[in-house]
Amino acid sequence: MGEPSNDKRPSVAALSRPLVDELIAKADVLRLDVSRSPCGARIVDAGIKARGGIEAGRRIAEICLGGLGRVSVDTAGRFARWGTMITVTTADPVIACLGSQYAGWSLSEGDFFALGSGPARALWAKETLFGELGYRDSADHACLVLEVDRTPPDSLVARIAEECGVAPERLTLILTPTSSLAGTVQIVARVLEVALHKTHALHFPLDRVVDGIGSSPLPPPAPDFVAAMGRTNDATLYGGDVQLFVTGPESDARELAEGLPSSSSRDHGRTFAEIFTAYKGDFYAMDPMLFSPARVTVTALETGRSFTFGAFHDDILERSFA
Amino acid sequence: MGEPSNDKRPSVAALSRPLVDELIAKADVLRLDVSRSPCGARIVDAGIKARGGIEAGRRIAEICLGGLGRVSVDTAGRFARWGTMITVTTADPVIACLGSQYAGWSLSEGDFFALGSGPARALWAKETLFGELGYRDSADHACLVLEVDRTPPDSLVARIAEECGVAPERLTLILTPTSSLAGTVQIVARVLEVALHKTHALHFPLDRVVDGIGSSPLPPPAPDFVAAMGRTNDATLYGGDVQLFVTGPESDARELAEGLPSSSSRDHGRTFAEIFTAYKGDFYAMDPMLFSPARVTVTALETGRSFTFGAFHDDILERSFA
Amino acid sequence: MGEPSNDKRPSVAALSRPLVDELIAKADVLRLDVSRSPCGARIVDAGIKARGGIEAGRRIAEICLGGLGRVSVDTAGRFARWGTMITVTTADPVIACLGSQYAGWSLSEGDFFALGSGPARALWAKETLFGELGYRDSADHACLVLEVDRTPPDSLVARIAEECGVAPERLTLILTPTSSLAGTVQIVARVLEVALHKTHALHFPLDRVVDGIGSSPLPPPAPDFVAAMGRTNDATLYGGDVQLFVTGPESDARELAEGLPSSSSRDHGRTFAEIFTAYKGDFYAMDPMLFSPARVTVTALETGRSFTFGAFHDDILERSFA
Repeated sequence: MGEPSNDKRPSVAALSRPLVDELIAKADVLRLDVSRSPCGARIVDAGIKARGGIEAGRRIAEICLGGLGRVSVDTAGRFARWGTMITVTTADPVIACLGSQYAGWSLSEGDFFALGSGPARALWAKETLFGELGYRDSADHACLVLEVDRTPPDSLVARIAEECGVAPERLTLILTPTSSLAGTVQIVARVLEVALHKTHALHFPLDRVVDGIGSSPLPPPAPDFVAAMGRTNDATLYGGDVQLFVTGPESDARELAEGLPSSSSRDHGRTFAEIFTAYKGDFYAMDPMLFSPARVTVTALETGRSFTFGAFHDDILERSFA
Repeated sequence: MGEPSNDKRPSVAALSRPLVDELIAKADVLRLDVSRSPCGARIVDAGIKARGGIEAGRRIAEICLGGLGRVSVDTAGRFARWGTMITVTTADPVIACLGSQYAGWSLSEGDFFALGSGPARALWAKETLFGELGYRDSADHACLVLEVDRTPPDSLVARIAEECGVAPERLTLILTPTSSLAGTVQIVARVLEVALHKTHALHFPLDRVVDGIGSSPLPPPAPDFVAAMGRTNDATLYGGDVQLFVTGPESDARELAEGLPSSSSRDHGRTFAEIFTAYKGDFYAMDPMLFSPARVTVTALETGRSFTFGAFHDDILERSFA
Repeated sequence: MGEPSNDKRPSVAALSRPLVDELIAKADVLRLDVSRSPCGARIVDAGIKARGGIEAGRRIAEICLGGLGRVSVDTAGRFARWGTMITVTTADPVIACLGSQYAGWSLSEGDFFALGSGPARALWAKETLFGELGYRDSADHACLVLEVDRTPPDSLVARIAEECGVAPERLTLILTPTSSLAGTVQIVARVLEVALHKTHALHFPLDRVVDGIGSSPLPPPAPDFVAAMGRTNDATLYGGDVQLFVTGPESDARELAEGLPSSSSRDHGRTFAEIFTAYKGDFYAMDPMLFSPARVTVTALETGRSFTFGAFHDDILERSFA
């Protein structure tokens, strides 16, 4: 009936459920505060009053990926000073990153505003993107991650449950402020998602993306919201590396590789905070095509050729992170 | 009775069983097709019609290692362009790599030919190598990985079950074409095995190899069989790094280190495809001593001295991968 | 009552218990010998008569961290020749590293001497450090790791059980000689702990350390005790990297970063063995401030600024490892 169907596609709700359960079971260990909102939803504070940490953020990132991804913290020598890398792989990049992880659910009530990321998005599935993915999920429980520094109004919490078609008691909201350690890891772990989102914006058919790997340096958190947002973006824009494996003509792969890196944007070359200031804080004046990894390699599976464009910028990272 | 005995040595069948079960349970998520052959064996398509992917290949590689190994996808700066590394560690390198992972079971019927890798080899245990390892396994279930692009004839499938002494319904065959993503990962994860195999060819006693670590860059798959085979080999020959820890005289360790790297071969310096073409496609004309990591470090535990020979060749990798 | 209380702090005994159970269950696979001492305690030989290995050491290191940490073996290009890195992250660095991992329990009887590391320390909790941490654990089972090359006298084993308040049959002692592969990994995995211990020695309040990450190259084991101890120390002193995330004034973070690296010590610049020899084998004549990572970055969460001091010394590592 034109309704997106799932065939044998994975349920991000079902796959992430054990990860959410373990996060709750280990909440004290991970230094998270778990409470119930007035309407009964479970609220996980991962960095507002709670300490949280890098490991909490790593686990939350795997929840955001709908249980389809692996996020690891490893050591690499790509940048002289920032040696800790976040590496992301998935079993199914398009569903994991765009069907679950992408912060695409715009939520607001009064002066509260948040972008929702994670598996609950696929239950709601009202974003245009879901129609294009031909994917929607079904479950009696939901989990959404909000990059916010305060608890959402309870009427909004109840509305999220309703939109997902689950009882409020079966909704889990995980709150990760941009300035927190958990938030920093969770955002930087979007390096592959950012590449896929731009792939989509460039009108490359998503069903031709077979696989992908991404890595970014871990920036230090910043207490100031713009600086924190800046650093997590700059980690990807000037330090992120993504390789995509695609089907179809080699020329399309080449064109995608040329279009993807942040260097293809008119705003490339300055830190996020510098650009943001130059546009007088108008986020929507920034070139949306800026948001992509520093370097991208696209491999055309049809011919086996790979195309690499973009470059790392240690100096800009240094300006941003230090 | 001269029959190899196991003492307290691990059963690669038992140890890999939970990994096989999970691979099957997550088949849809990992984009694998699972079916039953006419005789009842379970056939896992990991890249023929199925998409598979890097994560599927990583899990299959851990199955090949008989549940004794850990295969991780991480980020390193060893090569400018090829930043994704496959790192292999094991709890018991000789059993994991030679008793299970090595593609040593030659299988053919009509025009079908394949080399079998994985835990089922130790049930059959008819390769000369098993006598030398003094190892054989025993189980009522078996799993074999075949680097092929089509399903084996069912009479061959039934024969494999029989040779392993298991009912056909308890045999799992995993098919990973050389050109597939899963196949690429699974083959490159042999970097440590390749070093151990050459160690054996150099007549170094395997019971003196206490431990080992290997890593190789992940090459892009190629649709052409020779190119694909070439790249997965070149990843190890010109980009692989292995460290072995051995007992016995320091002079033996030094000699082993000097003999192991691919640079000790007369064919070193050209890509696999270039050599293959030079020998007019006669694989058996190639120097078998070529097949080993680019760089090898052997540590003599008796004295604590380490010997490093060989080097990485970014330029040859570039020619092979691009 | 002035007694340290746990609030919602993790039990390192409870969290490490499943890891100990799995180590025992996989003892044959990991090449460990498990036996019972006369008084009934479980003794795990991880490198005296048993072979053990890198993977055994990795798991023992995670036990030492009280089940709060993740120890991974990955590949990095920080050092030309020593490419295998041990990376450590934790959910709660101070409890994991100082409350459990630090080898702070001095045990002796007759000519037997050992320093105990791991979760049992928090049951005994008589070290001054525990008062300062305000942490102690409670459990009816205990696990302690001893860096020794022989089994402790049974009267000492019985005493350890008694001090921990557990029945001897519920005590597990894991023995990892400094010269063994498992011991090498387990010691090098202390890179973050070493930084936290010096942080404490510099009187920086531990409750202001929110998170941390550490990495060190894996040195080859040496059969000679002093050489082995030297290499595991040099891996951290000249190859270790740690990043700490702290609260409080930026100036304190800067001061901490300046004080932490091994380069702040008068003994910096020579290998551990060279210094040890210069002091005629008197360990206590060595500057205790030497024991810290080669490079340290401290991020002040209050302002977001990071301070990096110290540097890697490939040449000194080469002298020590080769």
